[in-house]
Amino acid sequence: MMHPSAASIKVLGFDVFGTVVDWRSSVIAEGEQLGKAKGLTVDWPAFADAWRSIYRPSLDRVQKGELPWTKLDLLHRMSLEEILKQFRITELTENEIEHLNRVWHRLKPWPDSVAGLQRLKTRFVITTLSNGNISLLTNMAKHAGLPWDCILSAENIRHYKPDREIYLLISDLFDLKPEQVMLVAAHENDLQSAKKHGLRAAFVHRPREHGPKRASEIPPQGKYDFVANDFLHLADLMGI
Amino acid sequence: MMHPSAASIKVLGFDVFGTVVDWRSSVIAEGEQLGKAKGLTVDWPAFADAWRSIYRPSLDRVQKGELPWTKLDLLHRMSLEEILKQFRITELTENEIEHLNRVWHRLKPWPDSVAGLQRLKTRFVITTLSNGNISLLTNMAKHAGLPWDCILSAENIRHYKPDREIYLLISDLFDLKPEQVMLVAAHENDLQSAKKHGLRAAFVHRPREHGPKRASEIPPQGKYDFVANDFLHLADLMGI
Repeated sequence: MMHPSAASIKVLGFDVFGTVVDWRSSVIAEGEQLGKAKGLTVDWPAFADAWRSIYRPSLDRVQKGELPWTKLDLLHRMSLEEILKQFRITELTENEIEHLNRVWHRLKPWPDSVAGLQRLKTRFVITTLSNGNISLLTNMAKHAGLPWDCILSAENIRHYKPDREIYLLISDLFDLKPEQVMLVAAHENDLQSAKKHGLRAAFVHRPREHGPKRASEIPPQGKYDFVANDFLHLADLMGI
Repeated sequence: MMHPSAASIKVLGFDVFGTVVDWRSSVIAEGEQLGKAKGLTVDWPAFADAWRSIYRPSLDRVQKGELPWTKLDLLHRMSLEEILKQFRITELTENEIEHLNRVWHRLKPWPDSVAGLQRLKTRFVITTLSNGNISLLTNMAKHAGLPWDCILSAENIRHYKPDREIYLLISDLFDLKPEQVMLVAAHENDLQSAKKHGLRAAFVHRPREHGPKRASEIPPQGKYDFVANDFLHLADLMGI
């Protein structure tokens, strides 16, 4: 049976990095492959963490106006060049650097992601609601088999999370009230921003996002509209 | 074998109304159903044609700046109110008018559309490139089973066809040259605009778009990169 608080929800917007796909393992796996091919000795888990650690600061530069609107592919590329220096990797050609930069287009889904989205899609419009640029999200979906109804991005509105505009994008486009939209995310700061702007919020626990040593905690039931272990559990909780 | 001029194409952008879906039969069928339910006597083919005939003038009002940016749903609604007056239909409730207006979200695909898109999708990114707003195109895809990789619309860039911005939207978003993008459309004016801005162009013949009495002509082979009878034929011609 449909959960009562699910009945009025029309669209589910998904955070993507960490929530739908396992960025860390994907970056490590491609790094190791590249390292083997090029004879590099690199601590790829540390490399992946270092690259991701300057993701938020790079968005902040756009939000503060230090940079004009810049799509995530290009922010990733600027960050990658810093990280390559930091790890003293000098052997890569331009093509290899660009291919590595686009690893974010090839991230692998969590094991439940595709099946969970397929189930949720039978009842709701499902869309990305991500800082990733449109081509990144489209290529990722094609690569990973993610069955989105629609690709929506910070790029649509040229505002990164946690700006208000990105949270209100879906309700504006679909002529809905904010409470008819639910953000699904593995990150409490994202969900808190969504709630602040009137959206519903579903927490999905991804304890291995930051690797085996930094498991995130699961918030108490009741802190969000739904608190789920994965997308299949979310579908169960929503009565889909 | 891949056709040589297809080899460098990365993304196919599709015109939607008339090219992917049969707007006229769909509007007539829903009109007839509504007419029966409400006891109306209306010439629904004439109604569908009249409604569609003020589509282009309504876009022109936005392009000339007489109206601020207005999404197609709302332009359709403004046009519908005129047409209801013209056909002296006064018996509809607000909910019925709004439901009728959203018939454009429920248009039916041509018989080859879904299978043809599935084939083309194995080799290219396939996206809408339509004046329809994002929610309209998303709901239509869900309703009709259209397997888009991405939903792109005039609404992304707030410029209707034939403005330059909409034709360059895909290459801008995907970091491609315009000639790596091909517009697929049943309308020569749309294809001519695409060619003018450097895109490839594929004509698909939809002779029944305007009903049995107004069959469109098929242009000569060679006028466009591909001239096809339907999407399956286009896939054949491209060697997919």
